[in-house]
Amino acid sequence: VKESGLSISATEKGGYRHFMLKEIHEQPRALAETWQGRVTARDILASSIGPTAEEIFGRVEAIHIVACGTSHHAGLVARYWIEAMSRIPCNVELASEYRYRDPVVPKNCLFVTLSQSGETADTLAALRYAKSREDGYLATLAICNKPETSLTRESDLVMMTRAGPEIGVASTKAFTTQLLCLLLLTGMLDRRPDERAALAANIRGVDTALAAVLELDEAIRKLAEEFVDKQHALFLGRGPMYPIAMEGALKLKEISYLHAEAYAAGELKHGPLALVDENMPVIAIAPNNEWLEKVKSNLQEVRARGGKLYVFADAESGLNTGPGITVLDMPHVDDILAPIAYTVPLQLLAYHVAVAKGTDVDQPRNLAKSVTVE
Amino acid sequence: VKESGLSISATEKGGYRHFMLKEIHEQPRALAETWQGRVTARDILASSIGPTAEEIFGRVEAIHIVACGTSHHAGLVARYWIEAMSRIPCNVELASEYRYRDPVVPKNCLFVTLSQSGETADTLAALRYAKSREDGYLATLAICNKPETSLTRESDLVMMTRAGPEIGVASTKAFTTQLLCLLLLTGMLDRRPDERAALAANIRGVDTALAAVLELDEAIRKLAEEFVDKQHALFLGRGPMYPIAMEGALKLKEISYLHAEAYAAGELKHGPLALVDENMPVIAIAPNNEWLEKVKSNLQEVRARGGKLYVFADAESGLNTGPGITVLDMPHVDDILAPIAYTVPLQLLAYHVAVAKGTDVDQPRNLAKSVTVE
Repeated sequence: VKESGLSISATEKGGYRHFMLKEIHEQPRALAETWQGRVTARDILASSIGPTAEEIFGRVEAIHIVACGTSHHAGLVARYWIEAMSRIPCNVELASEYRYRDPVVPKNCLFVTLSQSGETADTLAALRYAKSREDGYLATLAICNKPETSLTRESDLVMMTRAGPEIGVASTKAFTTQLLCLLLLTGMLDRRPDERAALAANIRGVDTALAAVLELDEAIRKLAEEFVDKQHALFLGRGPMYPIAMEGALKLKEISYLHAEAYAAGELKHGPLALVDENMPVIAIAPNNEWLEKVKSNLQEVRARGGKLYVFADAESGLNTGPGITVLDMPHVDDILAPIAYTVPLQLLAYHVAVAKGTDVDQPRNLAKSVTVE
Repeated sequence: VKESGLSISATEKGGYRHFMLKEIHEQPRALAETWQGRVTARDILASSIGPTAEEIFGRVEAIHIVACGTSHHAGLVARYWIEAMSRIPCNVELASEYRYRDPVVPKNCLFVTLSQSGETADTLAALRYAKSREDGYLATLAICNKPETSLTRESDLVMMTRAGPEIGVASTKAFTTQLLCLLLLTGMLDRRPDERAALAANIRGVDTALAAVLELDEAIRKLAEEFVDKQHALFLGRGPMYPIAMEGALKLKEISYLHAEAYAAGELKHGPLALVDENMPVIAIAPNNEWLEKVKSNLQEVRARGGKLYVFADAESGLNTGPGITVLDMPHVDDILAPIAYTVPLQLLAYHVAVAKGTDVDQPRNLAKSVTVE
């Protein structure tokens, strides 16, 4: 099955000031295109990615996900999903690390690559290395946004992200559609029909959920003003929100040139808390999930040290704006969609900080859109 | 077998200005005590950690390592060692993440915890959670510096790090002895007698190697002057040096309050390169190993963007001090010992920056020695 990848026209800014902002706002539609034809009212169809997929997925006993940069963050989220729902052990690794060591390949292991461009040098080299190994992988799957690339041509299975062309160097819709593809993969690997049906229903609501989040655009633009004169930021998350914190920090680095770093919230006390003072804003991601109470106690640690807090929290979280803490209420989304939904305000934050600082949003210094050299 | 853990008297500073500096200089002796009685001229003895160890290790088919902070970095290094040499799939995870998700436990999986104090709240809770799981681990092993702790009492096997009491909040000798214990574990799990013999010989040279590295103390004190007025730093490493870069960055955070962050060197182009300018010093770790040429090309990327480079390199690396690049020549050590040896100059760098800045080296703000609450 070949897809043109051009179903969303993205060669013009369509009224937006930058491609990045346009691409952020295209996410509901890009996500809808990504699940359509793959998810019915009650199931997620492995057959939608090819006639051999169902047989291959039925044999998978382990998964290795390999990627770079933003795509690597998507893989890290997927590990939480796959282990919790599909009950298959899953490893996620940087392509530049994987390809230079001698990893152990378990029996019936699926090798998954993620790349927007399909030409990322380290990811492609990792795929070729994986295929050359004598201990052999079960099969290779590429999750990719561009059709007819080296990565898609050389993989056994391909799942297109259907985000349409992405022009801004900082990846946005390619990332959230990667997350959705990985959620589809999680469902395809889940052998429990009722769970697959529940996941299918959730996925069919993702575009509506994202559209609601995008209504925060103006509120986040105002919030961004507080970051324009900052040099640093810490991002905190727990569970699948930890890689989302990593992605939020990377966006601020890439286009706002602000030294933002992410930590698993539970690690604060093991070192980074020493950095926290009035010059180090702390941004926390707090959906209304099983981790919420733990995140709240981490926030108290920050407040006690004079750190200024910004929290993206579920409207039902019970967290409120007060002295030293600014809470941005997010529309409620189901837990499983939270990593996708909570990415959006972090993209908008990085975007608006960059605009306020006057950086070149779509073509940040030192970076290229596709890293086709090592 | 019970050990007092008090073979090195560390209740006084013994002529050193701070406990941390004393503990850095105690490392050759602490490492020697850690391997003695466990490594013969030609082998590494599983029996040295208990009568059941050999039988248990013979059955191990997977390994989960769980820890926090600095101990987590030691675990990340061990993954490279264990997969490459023992050929056993190994996962390393933050205790605060592990204990709140529902991980898949492979058959005959050894659960390993690392903690200096043996009372780290998240690590202890992770051990208890692991033991409660119905899908069951093969056995539990605690690598710990303090005897008679909750962690050692509740684990099937215990390997003491024998670093002696560590007073400085920023862990130094506890970390390098953890690394050595994990290298011993790698050897105990390696079924190839010749490889075990070669590793034994290398390990028996670790204290001499570390003593040679410590002679760089004064050179690093001078180097540290260049960091006193800095707000940021990036640390780069590849392979097992990537977690060492993470540890180096954490030390600077903890005691020097400098926002240092580590990256796998191959990830530079995927985002953090946007941050690099004359205000963002970049510290690279370059032993003379298979990754050296790759690291060199990463260094050129930094130089091309005006970044100032500091490289801890093998004396035979071919790297030289020049415009914008300062090279600190390290004595040559065997590849397998490089993670232990290259930790030392990073500890010294953090120490001397902290002293020059006048921070409270042994008791940095906001941090406690043992994190016994969640």
